[in-house]
Amino acid sequence: MNEKALVVLSGGQDSTTCVYWAIERFGREQVSSVTFDYGQRHRIELDCAKEIAEFAGISNVILPIDTFAALGGNALTDSDIAVERVVNSTSSLPNTFVPGRNLVFLTFAAALAYQRGITHLVTGVAQTDYSGYPDCREETLRLLQEALRKGMESQVQIHTPLMHLSKKETVAMANALGALPAMALTHTCYNGERPPCGHCAACKLRAKGFVEAGIADPLLG
Amino acid sequence: MNEKALVVLSGGQDSTTCVYWAIERFGREQVSSVTFDYGQRHRIELDCAKEIAEFAGISNVILPIDTFAALGGNALTDSDIAVERVVNSTSSLPNTFVPGRNLVFLTFAAALAYQRGITHLVTGVAQTDYSGYPDCREETLRLLQEALRKGMESQVQIHTPLMHLSKKETVAMANALGALPAMALTHTCYNGERPPCGHCAACKLRAKGFVEAGIADPLLG
Repeated sequence: MNEKALVVLSGGQDSTTCVYWAIERFGREQVSSVTFDYGQRHRIELDCAKEIAEFAGISNVILPIDTFAALGGNALTDSDIAVERVVNSTSSLPNTFVPGRNLVFLTFAAALAYQRGITHLVTGVAQTDYSGYPDCREETLRLLQEALRKGMESQVQIHTPLMHLSKKETVAMANALGALPAMALTHTCYNGERPPCGHCAACKLRAKGFVEAGIADPLLG
Repeated sequence: MNEKALVVLSGGQDSTTCVYWAIERFGREQVSSVTFDYGQRHRIELDCAKEIAEFAGISNVILPIDTFAALGGNALTDSDIAVERVVNSTSSLPNTFVPGRNLVFLTFAAALAYQRGITHLVTGVAQTDYSGYPDCREETLRLLQEALRKGMESQVQIHTPLMHLSKKETVAMANALGALPAMALTHTCYNGERPPCGHCAACKLRAKGFVEAGIADPLLG
């Protein structure tokens, strides 16, 4: 069994926690990371990912995906569309939704893993406390894993260590894994501000997690 | 039930046949097409797709995917690597294999379909007579369809009218559907030559199909 792991690293809190989860599980020498440059409005995420990987002592590759911008019409890639300031709207998907974005990320990550002889993919998606993206749910990823295995003739395994954790529990896990110092390098704010705006859905959710865990956010220190 | 259809049109013989299959099944007004500009060595494929769509009287959009070229290391996007002149090598996958390429194509096609309110995707993949790409097999596409449905909360349906046809049968189907005139606009040759080289795996497979069907290839006419 191959025991190398590739972490999908966005530069945010959750994927950074996953880096440390993977290091504990597989060993630092076995872990690498991939970051997607998909035309996100906040280019700072790419810098954060590089810094986090360097800080954690693992390699990082940035892969471009220009297709989402061409598909257009969503808030995270189209600067003409304002990000909705709503958390967990029950009426509809948030307008940051890019149909299938996470499926594409994981398929490209699996392709890279295939080329490098890596079996394990790690992603920080969760179906608790989040915005309800259907491509981040456990059942979706289970089906995608099966499609990837058949489609690449591989034994790729998608790990989602945060899938059933609340933000509070994710912060506690990061603390237990020694990932807190790296949190100072992460980027969460939907509005791309640094220091974070504190008002957007992502900032509020992050703050809630740290408060409930009783831990100070190193990013605000 | 939505009855609009989106055809993944590569500019080759099979996807062109699928355009005419979709027109017969759904009606010309309901059919559109998408072509991926993924850094293929033979840019002529993109021109062919445009011409075929125009000839068939359906719309076409070209979506860029720059990720495969960044992943590198395969013959269809890397001009430094010679295309293997072997059909149906049983020992290994052909070196034109990009891990998961077809999974990516269909996921982006599904995203575009989602945005346009289209339920039906049509792709010309087949598991008969071909090079053994695992991401073109029926079981893979069935699993992918399930992942796409869950991941996009859609009822997307992937149609593969050529899945179990030999090249001979595909040519016969094209003939029955009135797709033969459009065949003069298609591109098949792995070496990007026009008129086709006649020696590469793709040219040989195409010629075999027309010969066995007892029909003259309009491209050679």
